[in-house]
Amino acid sequence: MPSPLHVQFVAAARGGPWSITSVTAIVGDPLPTASSLTVTEVPAGSGTTGPADAAWALHGIVSNERYVEREEKTRLALVQEGLGRPGATSGALIPIHKSDAWWQLPQDDRRAIFEARSSHIKIGLEALPAVARRLHHCRDLGGPFDFLTWFEFAPEHGAAFDDLLGALRATEEWDYVDREVEVRVSR
Amino acid sequence: MPSPLHVQFVAAARGGPWSITSVTAIVGDPLPTASSLTVTEVPAGSGTTGPADAAWALHGIVSNERYVEREEKTRLALVQEGLGRPGATSGALIPIHKSDAWWQLPQDDRRAIFEARSSHIKIGLEALPAVARRLHHCRDLGGPFDFLTWFEFAPEHGAAFDDLLGALRATEEWDYVDREVEVRVSR
Repeated sequence: MPSPLHVQFVAAARGGPWSITSVTAIVGDPLPTASSLTVTEVPAGSGTTGPADAAWALHGIVSNERYVEREEKTRLALVQEGLGRPGATSGALIPIHKSDAWWQLPQDDRRAIFEARSSHIKIGLEALPAVARRLHHCRDLGGPFDFLTWFEFAPEHGAAFDDLLGALRATEEWDYVDREVEVRVSR
Repeated sequence: MPSPLHVQFVAAARGGPWSITSVTAIVGDPLPTASSLTVTEVPAGSGTTGPADAAWALHGIVSNERYVEREEKTRLALVQEGLGRPGATSGALIPIHKSDAWWQLPQDDRRAIFEARSSHIKIGLEALPAVARRLHHCRDLGGPFDFLTWFEFAPEHGAAFDDLLGALRATEEWDYVDREVEVRVSR
């Protein structure tokens, strides 16, 4: 892991490799609808504005892990697959924001809710390797969300992805999510 | 904890409330010498460039805790004092960068090195309430450092502060510090 990777998600009327098939507000305010989505690596400090013709642009960082422990990291590395698989023509961008109550918790309390009580990693493992995933942090960048999670999977694994979302949203951890938007895409 | 606080440290030839008394490279490259230091809150996304006449400018974020656990948080809150005490006319800014080896470690390994084996919090507690401290994160902003720690204390507590630095630099955690600069200031 050299310097953290900065990634921008830009929604616009046209031009991106991904077609936006739906934009759904799960909790809180929605995002504007748009037709196409582009995912690009950008230099650090690029800001969160995006090009002039963007419907919206979100900027996140692939940073170090905040909760994953050694044994979990080993298990994940054994089964997860990378982004960009040719058959993975379905995708989703899920921006979420967590409440102040979450951020005020000390590390051990957040970890206990995250895994011991919500099984976040365990639930994620069940969708591997079908669903590839990359987490982007953005709370510290000052935008409207704390995390942007990007998923890619083959269309025949759509049900596994739906199950993943349903299971996570039923957890105690999700009680702290006060904004969540689900952007579905295909290419 | 509402949105994270963004703070800029600007060193220049004149004009700041703090006079820089020394700039010492502890490990790795130094920072340019300068005469005065200004600490200001800035909007998120202000970048790391600073004003045109700055010798250097560093930008960090007062973010959520990454290692502190509930019991430690309670103990710290009981004894620590805030910034800006009238008698605290000595200060220091200590920017550090940690190696890739550190950042590749999973959370439990980093926590074990940080506290179980290096007693980072315990060592810090020994200097409380004399030395007030605020940690700023900057790894995800793409600048040259990962952390900027700001300290304020009364001149008569200079020895306690020196002891704190000496004890931290002797820890296993500090084996992962590959750049550290010590900027001493007074007002």
